[in-house]
Amino acid sequence: MRTTTAWQSTNGSTALKRVPIERRDLRPDDIAVRVDFCGVCHSDLHAIHRGGAPLVPGHEFTGTVAETGAAVTRFAAGDRVAVGTIVDSCGGCPMCRAGQENYCHEFPALTYGGKAGAFGGYSREYVLRETFAYPLPAGLDPAAAAPLMCAGITVWEPLRAAGVGPGTRVAVAGLGGLGHLAVKLAAALGAEVTVLSRTPGKAADARALGAGDLLLTTDEEGMRGARDRFDLVLDTISAPHELSPLLRLVALDGTLSLLGYLAQVPVNAMDLLMGRKKLSSSGTGGTKGTAELLEFCAGRGITADIELLPSGRVAEALTRLERGDVRYRFVLDLSDLD
Amino acid sequence: MRTTTAWQSTNGSTALKRVPIERRDLRPDDIAVRVDFCGVCHSDLHAIHRGGAPLVPGHEFTGTVAETGAAVTRFAAGDRVAVGTIVDSCGGCPMCRAGQENYCHEFPALTYGGKAGAFGGYSREYVLRETFAYPLPAGLDPAAAAPLMCAGITVWEPLRAAGVGPGTRVAVAGLGGLGHLAVKLAAALGAEVTVLSRTPGKAADARALGAGDLLLTTDEEGMRGARDRFDLVLDTISAPHELSPLLRLVALDGTLSLLGYLAQVPVNAMDLLMGRKKLSSSGTGGTKGTAELLEFCAGRGITADIELLPSGRVAEALTRLERGDVRYRFVLDLSDLD
Repeated sequence: MRTTTAWQSTNGSTALKRVPIERRDLRPDDIAVRVDFCGVCHSDLHAIHRGGAPLVPGHEFTGTVAETGAAVTRFAAGDRVAVGTIVDSCGGCPMCRAGQENYCHEFPALTYGGKAGAFGGYSREYVLRETFAYPLPAGLDPAAAAPLMCAGITVWEPLRAAGVGPGTRVAVAGLGGLGHLAVKLAAALGAEVTVLSRTPGKAADARALGAGDLLLTTDEEGMRGARDRFDLVLDTISAPHELSPLLRLVALDGTLSLLGYLAQVPVNAMDLLMGRKKLSSSGTGGTKGTAELLEFCAGRGITADIELLPSGRVAEALTRLERGDVRYRFVLDLSDLD
Repeated sequence: MRTTTAWQSTNGSTALKRVPIERRDLRPDDIAVRVDFCGVCHSDLHAIHRGGAPLVPGHEFTGTVAETGAAVTRFAAGDRVAVGTIVDSCGGCPMCRAGQENYCHEFPALTYGGKAGAFGGYSREYVLRETFAYPLPAGLDPAAAAPLMCAGITVWEPLRAAGVGPGTRVAVAGLGGLGHLAVKLAAALGAEVTVLSRTPGKAADARALGAGDLLLTTDEEGMRGARDRFDLVLDTISAPHELSPLLRLVALDGTLSLLGYLAQVPVNAMDLLMGRKKLSSSGTGGTKGTAELLEFCAGRGITADIELLPSGRVAEALTRLERGDVRYRFVLDLSDLD
């Protein structure tokens, strides 16, 4: 076994403790990655609050290859890499064969937690099969690129599945880690982007990110006027909320994609019927989409807007994230673990 | 006013009574239609059971133009016509402009009931704007064509919205009025069609209608093996039921379309997420789709499989429909009202 240092939660506490942890010895197709930067995702908070076994969160990180297994072909020591939410899958089911390992029929191995209770990226070293690591394009800032690996791919896949391009009318509900990247990516794809928000003060930010407009969800007349307007509504709101007001904004044959709140939701079939609308959902991405996203972001110079903190301040990041006080993603610098 | 004869329900009774009713005098763009054949739809039963004001059901009928208003251009007396579930709409909203008057923002005028409490097609004469009547293609049997106007268009629109064609994998859950037409139409579009049923005895019928296969929903192994198999699942089941088993059959980026049970349904977002699946719904159709359907059916010789009864036996039809005892649609012959 290899040993490294990590930030660990026990008993549901956000006051993570610095602890030594073990990583497996390298298998032939494994690489060991020195984790340089790891994003702080809303699902890290959920996992911490669930409690249970000791937990090391973190599933969107960038780093540097430290060592390679004997059969590794795609990476060499010193290469910059990015890792997302999935580190293995069955490889044989229809979803894996389609490059959508995130929907593997055997359920994919998650970067942390999951069936094996793996320790995640809030640590100085991570070991994984090379298949699930991605070369980090040279032009992208390694800290600001880390959130592309969960928040970014989570909004990228539904944008691509809906065929978003020039002229597509896209609305983004919620302007957090997912939402701000959804605006940037949809705008870069050529879409006309509208942010849906309860907060008038976000209009300037929305425009700076690439949105053409902000529609206040509290503005009844504005909401009525926007009925059937959007080909795609990306719903990144992480708290429980009514879907009917958002479904009314969806155009004929358009889609409302649930990305932020993934529980059992009551759906009024008539809200779907009146306009032949679709309700969808999507979670992270597979190797195909992730590689495509990194290439797209490299070409357009797109990364997340982040607040970079030394990993020793992880508790502060989690507390502020919990109250929505972040623009737009915290990223931890793990170099203080050396 | 004009007078005619109709079958009317009062106080939620399926023992309809023969009564005289009034129709409006012809406006310049109206036609009067002698109703020859009218299908018996599941929603007729629902409307009767809701009770309330006296009701004349019937919203899928064929007939013969008896008289035309002064400004009518598309029809002349003696023409065979077909009428569906909608007889007017605002004409100006985005849905109407797209030929999807069924989703009119002002809500369309329904052939019976609706805001105006209109009397429907279980009657010998109907008056409507010519815009919402369709020429009945010469090759189609007028009795067997009547169900195309509600059951047919209800399944046609989601087939077309999903771009169903050669090679598309379509499953149809429920083999009643909607389901049997869904199988015929999907097969005629070139799709590989599978019927989903709890009843092994329906396999022969399913194949005769054009399905390649019947999958028993009680066969756990078969259902597991069919995971992620179908690009489109048309759910025509009219009773409350779980959506999760059907969503598991939907392929990556595929759609489950709710057509039979249109209430508030609980949806597990994870069922949508695992495979980026879509839940949709659809109801009847607009002028664009309906005209297209009639042309398609004329070209392929497609009509419903019906049991034709004199309209005096309407109570028997309703009672048998209620217990699912029909292959596959009752149609009333209204000539006994003369």
